[in-house]
Amino acid sequence: MKKTFLIILICSMMIPALSAQNNSGNQEKTFGLVIHGGAGYIYKGRYNKEEENAYQIKLQEALDSGYAILARGGNSIDAVEHTIWVMENSPLFNAGKGGVMTSEETVELDAAIMCGKDLKAGAVAGIKHIKSPISLARKVMENSPHVFMVGEGAEKFGFENGFEKVDNSYFYTEQTLKEIKRIKEEEKNKHSLNYEEPNKYGTVGCVALDKYGNLAAGTSTGGMVNKKFGRVGDVPVIGAGTYANNSTAALSCTGHGEFFIRNVVAHDISSLIEYKGLSLNDAAYEVIMKKLLDQNGRGGVIGIDKNANITMQFNTDGMFRGFKLSNGKNYIGMYRE
Amino acid sequence: MKKTFLIILICSMMIPALSAQNNSGNQEKTFGLVIHGGAGYIYKGRYNKEEENAYQIKLQEALDSGYAILARGGNSIDAVEHTIWVMENSPLFNAGKGGVMTSEETVELDAAIMCGKDLKAGAVAGIKHIKSPISLARKVMENSPHVFMVGEGAEKFGFENGFEKVDNSYFYTEQTLKEIKRIKEEEKNKHSLNYEEPNKYGTVGCVALDKYGNLAAGTSTGGMVNKKFGRVGDVPVIGAGTYANNSTAALSCTGHGEFFIRNVVAHDISSLIEYKGLSLNDAAYEVIMKKLLDQNGRGGVIGIDKNANITMQFNTDGMFRGFKLSNGKNYIGMYRE
Repeated sequence: MKKTFLIILICSMMIPALSAQNNSGNQEKTFGLVIHGGAGYIYKGRYNKEEENAYQIKLQEALDSGYAILARGGNSIDAVEHTIWVMENSPLFNAGKGGVMTSEETVELDAAIMCGKDLKAGAVAGIKHIKSPISLARKVMENSPHVFMVGEGAEKFGFENGFEKVDNSYFYTEQTLKEIKRIKEEEKNKHSLNYEEPNKYGTVGCVALDKYGNLAAGTSTGGMVNKKFGRVGDVPVIGAGTYANNSTAALSCTGHGEFFIRNVVAHDISSLIEYKGLSLNDAAYEVIMKKLLDQNGRGGVIGIDKNANITMQFNTDGMFRGFKLSNGKNYIGMYRE
Repeated sequence: MKKTFLIILICSMMIPALSAQNNSGNQEKTFGLVIHGGAGYIYKGRYNKEEENAYQIKLQEALDSGYAILARGGNSIDAVEHTIWVMENSPLFNAGKGGVMTSEETVELDAAIMCGKDLKAGAVAGIKHIKSPISLARKVMENSPHVFMVGEGAEKFGFENGFEKVDNSYFYTEQTLKEIKRIKEEEKNKHSLNYEEPNKYGTVGCVALDKYGNLAAGTSTGGMVNKKFGRVGDVPVIGAGTYANNSTAALSCTGHGEFFIRNVVAHDISSLIEYKGLSLNDAAYEVIMKKLLDQNGRGGVIGIDKNANITMQFNTDGMFRGFKLSNGKNYIGMYRE
């Protein structure tokens, strides 16, 4: 495992070269997917070997599951949904099971999915009783005339469309319960209102290009730990945290949501490609490493375009991330290299 | 009143010339504001003279109130909030009092406001017990670290910040009560699920440029009549229904929200200005009259840029709209001319 990890880490410096290759040679168009599992204080030394291994194994499992769908001719929406589903079901990430706790010590989940072919999209926020918010977002996209549903209304739509109702405690983990207790204790001692900056930007996301040249993007999150007042971040805001358009790219963000909303990050990257002719990677660099960083807006983005060029830009210490393409390239990383 | 209305109607064909004038001559920079009160089936013959007069008077009152703030050196955020507040308090428009009813026969309101100088923004959705959603959105922008709050959480934030709690019935009007009864009756007779296209896109919005060159945009709405499942439209989605950026324009949309979300309309117009060098009016035309119309996405947009160039594009029969600028130009319109 360690050796494999070293080999794939080395690939990280080769992304531009690798992207260029995608446009040449092969008769069959390259397809594949990129994932993230959140950005933030993910620095060398934070995780022990066992924890690193756990993340790497789960990221690879998510990649493999989505890739298998694409390889057998499945579409990019199926691949995105299934890949995110794998991460939602892992307590390692702040999405689905393992989603961080609100100030009321509940878990409230947000998700969005978008199809680059026809710009159809589905988004949900404040979900407490449906296991897979990404699947609910897809149902909103496909089985309703709406894009965005929130709270109990969104759940009601889900139940009417066959989703199982689960108790909110389904999402709890030992770690998230401990975390909210610790934060509340700190808050009490500080006598502050806890209008604090978040120190963790957990989210999971996937962008995919299928054999038919169609792009899709999806993102799922538990939001900000200790969140209050029905706060919604960038994830379900189409154009901010999630966006896909066959003529530009599929993008999924993770970070301090408020900055991603104000800067309409995913759509801004798309616009730099469409209207200014920037490459996907240059556009992502411009927004994440310049615009956002100038405002101290922390986070990252993953993207893929119709030629299987990819990007994985982040201005934090690290970002759980990976990609798997039909040209044989496979990469998983956590830290800045 | 009639004569005045005719004179101001004639101005409608002069907008491009008028915009050009703003950049020349005067030492003092032009300031002013543009408003809308919704787009849709607003065609000649739909309203009688008395109804037309009522709309014109209220639109002019809204314009005057916002203009007075700008004229005495107030900032664009104050002007936008106050102008929208005037329209929220009128039962003529689908916002605040007069907001259309949900499937549960309640009123659930959404609003957003954004400051072009620093990209700060506030948005709320699903508000049932606070009179002015636009003021609540502003409070979210200014008194919280968040951008977007929904439902009871957003209201709790409002109450903690001094907003009065009102019963949901405060928002009811004879007309909206009648409308929901009629729609539900039709629905029963059709035995359909009412997954219908909306035939009315009511919203109110305002964009303003102040004496200091700062832009602001705001939008407020009751959403889609007979809406279900906690549906949220484009209004509180920053980049879709509302966006402001001093380097491009302040924009507020009204229309079939789902299309405005998928197309990230306000930010797309801004991007065409920023990255492709289009004028505000050309950019708005490109998105509303081409991109959206190609998808049969119905609605309109108002905008103003730092040089007091304005736009009021719509692809519906009509749009309640108006502008008032410090160069003396004042216009109010309802129908396509």
